[in-house]
Amino acid sequence: MCHTVAVTRARWTTETVPLPPHALAWLTQRVGLGEPFSEVSVSAPPSTLSADAFTALEAVCAVSADDEDRLGRAGGLSYLDLLRRRGHGEPAVPDAVVTPGSPDEVVEVLKVCVEHDVAVVPFGGGTSVVGGVEALRGSKAAVVALDVSGLASLVSVDPVSRVAVLQAGLTGPEAEKLLEEHGFTLGHVPQSFERATIGGFAATRSAGQASSGYGRFEDMVESVRVATPVGEWVAGTAPASAAGPDLKQLVLGSEGVFGVITEVSVRVRPRPYGPRYEGFVVDGWEAGVALVRTLAQDGVLADITRLSDADETEVALEMAGEKAALLRKYLRFRRVSQPCLVILGWECRSRSATMSSLSGHKVVRLGRSMGASWLHGRFNGPRQRDALLDAGVCVETLETAAHWSRVSEVRSAVRAALVAELGNPVVMCHVSHAYETGASLYFTVLVPRDLEDPVGQWGRAKAVASEVVSSLGTITHHHAVGVDHAPWLEREIGSVGVSVLRAVKQRVDPTGILNPGKLI
Amino acid sequence: MCHTVAVTRARWTTETVPLPPHALAWLTQRVGLGEPFSEVSVSAPPSTLSADAFTALEAVCAVSADDEDRLGRAGGLSYLDLLRRRGHGEPAVPDAVVTPGSPDEVVEVLKVCVEHDVAVVPFGGGTSVVGGVEALRGSKAAVVALDVSGLASLVSVDPVSRVAVLQAGLTGPEAEKLLEEHGFTLGHVPQSFERATIGGFAATRSAGQASSGYGRFEDMVESVRVATPVGEWVAGTAPASAAGPDLKQLVLGSEGVFGVITEVSVRVRPRPYGPRYEGFVVDGWEAGVALVRTLAQDGVLADITRLSDADETEVALEMAGEKAALLRKYLRFRRVSQPCLVILGWECRSRSATMSSLSGHKVVRLGRSMGASWLHGRFNGPRQRDALLDAGVCVETLETAAHWSRVSEVRSAVRAALVAELGNPVVMCHVSHAYETGASLYFTVLVPRDLEDPVGQWGRAKAVASEVVSSLGTITHHHAVGVDHAPWLEREIGSVGVSVLRAVKQRVDPTGILNPGKLI
Repeated sequence: MCHTVAVTRARWTTETVPLPPHALAWLTQRVGLGEPFSEVSVSAPPSTLSADAFTALEAVCAVSADDEDRLGRAGGLSYLDLLRRRGHGEPAVPDAVVTPGSPDEVVEVLKVCVEHDVAVVPFGGGTSVVGGVEALRGSKAAVVALDVSGLASLVSVDPVSRVAVLQAGLTGPEAEKLLEEHGFTLGHVPQSFERATIGGFAATRSAGQASSGYGRFEDMVESVRVATPVGEWVAGTAPASAAGPDLKQLVLGSEGVFGVITEVSVRVRPRPYGPRYEGFVVDGWEAGVALVRTLAQDGVLADITRLSDADETEVALEMAGEKAALLRKYLRFRRVSQPCLVILGWECRSRSATMSSLSGHKVVRLGRSMGASWLHGRFNGPRQRDALLDAGVCVETLETAAHWSRVSEVRSAVRAALVAELGNPVVMCHVSHAYETGASLYFTVLVPRDLEDPVGQWGRAKAVASEVVSSLGTITHHHAVGVDHAPWLEREIGSVGVSVLRAVKQRVDPTGILNPGKLI
Repeated sequence: MCHTVAVTRARWTTETVPLPPHALAWLTQRVGLGEPFSEVSVSAPPSTLSADAFTALEAVCAVSADDEDRLGRAGGLSYLDLLRRRGHGEPAVPDAVVTPGSPDEVVEVLKVCVEHDVAVVPFGGGTSVVGGVEALRGSKAAVVALDVSGLASLVSVDPVSRVAVLQAGLTGPEAEKLLEEHGFTLGHVPQSFERATIGGFAATRSAGQASSGYGRFEDMVESVRVATPVGEWVAGTAPASAAGPDLKQLVLGSEGVFGVITEVSVRVRPRPYGPRYEGFVVDGWEAGVALVRTLAQDGVLADITRLSDADETEVALEMAGEKAALLRKYLRFRRVSQPCLVILGWECRSRSATMSSLSGHKVVRLGRSMGASWLHGRFNGPRQRDALLDAGVCVETLETAAHWSRVSEVRSAVRAALVAELGNPVVMCHVSHAYETGASLYFTVLVPRDLEDPVGQWGRAKAVASEVVSSLGTITHHHAVGVDHAPWLEREIGSVGVSVLRAVKQRVDPTGILNPGKLI
């Protein structure tokens, strides 16, 4: 076991990556640009936190009611959040930001908030795309953002069992840096990796890009430590147990409504030796789905497995710039009429097992440069959204998972619903995560922004897509519920399921201070 | 999708397998036989079920208040259960046995039981070894056993997604027979396989012998359909989801206290081609643990992985009869001073991957005959317990799981506690299931039966072992909580955890009719 090691954590900031000229040219031609606009200055309303509550919180840990700090925790990174920062809709701004420095201080903060009847929104990297960190106050007169950045230690490492205890406020890169000193990795790299936190991964059932190899975040968790208004709750003890229901699975995905996750005990692995990423092309979506399904059901998936449909592949080729023409020519030569890109990456699983299974399918190898190019751009999606918005484009993603027998039906139905609602959008889709029994589908939508009512434009599109998705699969595979998916939760888990969540909520948060308006 | 196929299900019966003469001779010499005794006739007390309740139940489905039917559901297969059938302690006998024929009828039965305030104990194969099916009535005037044997259909098969929906009353062999018609297997073979049911596997988080390959039962479950007093509850939709907490993990392991599981949707796999089982020997327990840990952490475990300690290996060699002397000679020749048997079996995973990792360890191969011998006797443990009891032996098992860094400490401490309490018992131990972060340990204890107080003798031994187990690992890895482990549950899941389970219970079973006295 090691002693606690603390790292400092960078403040939450907004980075924008500009669009390259050929991307902008393609956008202009295919999507058509809308009216450009820039971020407007949004001001914070006066804080409604009482002086008594402020003083009581200050006795526990750092508290700030500065406008800049409060605005920095006013929502996440959904399209609606980005619109709010551009003057469309009111961002919900917390009345103060509290930054406890230990799990015990989190418990104390919750006690104070119960006593003063103040709502609490746990805030990690602020990367929610479903409204999960909106500073809603519910029926309370005030709301504070509980910033977990003060919980930034590697608490312990058990190298024999390969278990590490990480505090909730560590971002992906920070956690990896601390684990690297012990030769380990978590292997959890979702697109939000650079900013999102360990606590956020746990609270939202995050799935990393290499989930086939390392598992979803919930698969890595051995136990969770949670501060609740009724005291501390530690769920999970052993590698496996039959001691009643698995309560850590009740905490994972609870999105801060049952408590604030302060520490997570996770399974770690040795850092990969010689990871390798490659690009392939198959002819047509159905061939691609059959391929990925075979790999999954033969148990030979690569760690990273990603199948783009023809539309997404077309865009990827466009973005490849000068190389695109050469690639297209080569694919015609190989008689591929509907190219669908497949990215496979090996970090811990056997490449030869995958490749041997691939040999039974018609697959064109594009080699490692295409894999390297994917790796290089793996975090670009969220970074480029501000630039797209500023160019007048409505850009958003949505995702689901369904059993294999329904995967293609889901893709077609979601596309059809979005086209019917939005006119002539670009809808790109890829299989992002594969399982023995099914897969997740990830959609990216681009359309010129409605100048009159951009919020309503996306709201209607999201609603029709969600209707489809929730009738054929899950309302969310890895984005969580937050505010945006809450209307569809009951359809998925039933009225008894909702009632059970409410019963748990009432027991651990009887006065309802925790993350009002989210999940249930 | 296929149509419903029903199979008839054999009634629950007690089979006893006699001990072979050399086993009896060894027992006499090593353990010393106690006073033999045979099963005495236990009579059923008069049924306290009201005529009104009986009539109301009869309007829904088959009901019996026959003594034979009631006694057949009076408890499970723990040592205490077996003692009760021999006149030590009072078995809890249900007042009637109801046998609904469909999930809807289960819902109706629960409605009647709520209305008439009758306790309900779900009863599958009756193989609980922790008191999970004891017909306790709690505060109710009457209790019925809800026999799930009428729910015995394969509801559907989705061969593309490899998902099958099985009704809860199917036994292991029945489920396999139905799946075999479609070319599939569940691969779930715990020692209780022959009698235990799909619903029981789900309600207790069962782990099969090939769990490294096929996963624990909960890993196979896509969704569960549950009848509760407040209506039906279906938990689980897609292969993976981030739509809030995973509520199916709250049903799995709920041991009938939240509802009666009526159908389970499971991931299935093609039937294995050429399964293979082999025996190996390593020198000493620590070498064996290091070996299994390496296999687990390298991701190359066989489907079945079982490491016996020196004591269990000694007994296994004794039981091998004539071959024992030859084997011992061979092991001396190979300079193995403390033989520990390792059984590895491959059904779906790669043998070559395992063998390649084995090559780095000092391992003596005993070949396929030892594997075949393990396979042949894999269900003998429970079958021989009656014969052992009749020979005057106190025989019981207990199990746990812990992280690798504690596995050996757990074994030593449990052994020491049992020896201190029981005098000179035979304590055998094996690693029965392995994970990346730890393993389960399974103990078998043999000691001459205390003639005065056999119940107290085991009760005290179980208590000291449970104290050790619950301080270092989980109170149960795959036997569940039932009545016997309930006193240690709070230590494992904490007071908030217990309180959460109670909140859920209160919400779905407000009058407390379901399986009183179990789990919480």
